[in-house]
Amino acid sequence: MDNAALAEAVRRGERRALARAITLVESGRADHRAAATDLLARLADPSRQALRVGLSGTPGVGKSTFIDALGLHLTAQGLKVAVLAVDPSSARSGGSILGDKTRMERLSRDPAAFIRPSPAASQLGGVARRTREAVSLCEAAGFDVVLVETVGVGQSETMVAQLVDVFVLLLAPAGGDELQGVKRGIMESADILLVNKADGDLAAEARRTAADYAGALRLLRKRPQDPDGYPLALTVSAATGAGIDIAWDAVTRLADLRRAAGILNRTRAEQARHWFAEELRAEMLTLLTRDPDLKARLARLEEDVAAGRTTPAAAAAEALRPLAA
Amino acid sequence: MDNAALAEAVRRGERRALARAITLVESGRADHRAAATDLLARLADPSRQALRVGLSGTPGVGKSTFIDALGLHLTAQGLKVAVLAVDPSSARSGGSILGDKTRMERLSRDPAAFIRPSPAASQLGGVARRTREAVSLCEAAGFDVVLVETVGVGQSETMVAQLVDVFVLLLAPAGGDELQGVKRGIMESADILLVNKADGDLAAEARRTAADYAGALRLLRKRPQDPDGYPLALTVSAATGAGIDIAWDAVTRLADLRRAAGILNRTRAEQARHWFAEELRAEMLTLLTRDPDLKARLARLEEDVAAGRTTPAAAAAEALRPLAA
Repeated sequence: MDNAALAEAVRRGERRALARAITLVESGRADHRAAATDLLARLADPSRQALRVGLSGTPGVGKSTFIDALGLHLTAQGLKVAVLAVDPSSARSGGSILGDKTRMERLSRDPAAFIRPSPAASQLGGVARRTREAVSLCEAAGFDVVLVETVGVGQSETMVAQLVDVFVLLLAPAGGDELQGVKRGIMESADILLVNKADGDLAAEARRTAADYAGALRLLRKRPQDPDGYPLALTVSAATGAGIDIAWDAVTRLADLRRAAGILNRTRAEQARHWFAEELRAEMLTLLTRDPDLKARLARLEEDVAAGRTTPAAAAAEALRPLAA
Repeated sequence: MDNAALAEAVRRGERRALARAITLVESGRADHRAAATDLLARLADPSRQALRVGLSGTPGVGKSTFIDALGLHLTAQGLKVAVLAVDPSSARSGGSILGDKTRMERLSRDPAAFIRPSPAASQLGGVARRTREAVSLCEAAGFDVVLVETVGVGQSETMVAQLVDVFVLLLAPAGGDELQGVKRGIMESADILLVNKADGDLAAEARRTAADYAGALRLLRKRPQDPDGYPLALTVSAATGAGIDIAWDAVTRLADLRRAAGILNRTRAEQARHWFAEELRAEMLTLLTRDPDLKARLARLEEDVAAGRTTPAAAAAEALRPLAA
């Protein structure tokens, strides 16, 4: 299938074409990259936009069960839902080793849903750049909601926050000072905190955890994109489905408020600029490292800088001499 | 004076030479940049290192008075202190419009102190890159402590955190849920919070504020570089000098703990890599924009990306065609 035909098939919402297009954008091969760039340009269509929702949480918090329940809640309303995973770690733990479709058993059988497992481990920046392109492909294919799932460690939230409209953080109930290892994500990116497992014995503790985090966030953070009442902390139970509807209402309400205030489109434009700068940086580095000698030279310069044997400015000037000539 | 003589004069700790060297690294002129790169390479000396301390706080919190008091506390111990300011805003408000030397009246008359006003307004990344070089110059000149002051708004803390060993945030006493506009800085970068104005009527409120922030930070953040008890929140009074000694002990104790754990040198090596990457990015952009036609083309492509008329990847490929040829 050539790119014109592939683009048409994606636009018609054909799942196999969409899967193939995502594989193309994820590929590291230079000829695939050129084809992917062409395909994305063919499909660029500002009129087809999904609500882009980021979802993060540490392993064991119940992300798969939650997405399964949320996805069914959305498809029951007639919405088409795509789920994309970003996972920078090569060795995924627990249930996810069985594959993402096994993780979200009910949703994977739903014809209105499309679930894409995480790409093979790679450099995190690269994964996030390609995930952004996969989001575009899902939008071109007519999905109404694109959920981007990331595991709550390291910098992946910061990356994912640059490609979604609303960022949701899933937490487990935890007493008092107990930390959940969510680090940067919770503080910078989270628009809505959901404390999961709010059922049975843990219900009261989940409510207390939600109140603690909401209080701490409101004390430490005020962002222009947060309307009154946000960041919001709610409780849910992925297992029983309790609170899923209220949580989704909070997501769409926040998106509506941001849209009405002009923030949603402004944020998307800023995100696009951000990814343009990232692409520029990455492609410039590719230019510098496509030759193995140049690449070795760059690595050596970086080590010299780290060891204090030269300065960043001198090393950068040295590194760029081949391009400047 | 040629660069060899200037380097020698800086190494001897001559103030006028240091001021002149900083002016050189801050200059935007291409020939100055080449001379600055050469000067920094001449002065690179891993054996001359200062304790690098970042200090942030919103306008009105008392930063100038605090630095004045802290600086005198340090010079009284026989330490040589340099104060550098990073301020991304062009129109500085309040007392600072009178100039940094007026802001720190007593310290500016102290022969063991060197105060450098903020550079002229410029692109923030550029200011931070050049400030990092100014820190190196102060170290080469034999200063024991380099304080990097930044106003607590926007992204300047994130930048400054990439060039210091310990980051201190100065806050005002504030009741309950009142926000202080410190945003990203407080959450990501602060190692030690100091609630200022802990004197007279405000003393009790200052202690309460310190406890609130310490609790919220410990709930939301746990970083590998934080030893037990950190992030720490203390109260100080810049006006009376109360708590300044304890605050400084907390700074040096944290630096000692990080040094003993190998974290301090690892962090400095990572910071150097970060600035190398920043230099590379900035200089690559310079290559792309030194020609006015190319520059206009790049700006047009960025607008196309922001408006959704093209994709980041396609625009980057297009932008880099001149270099790739």
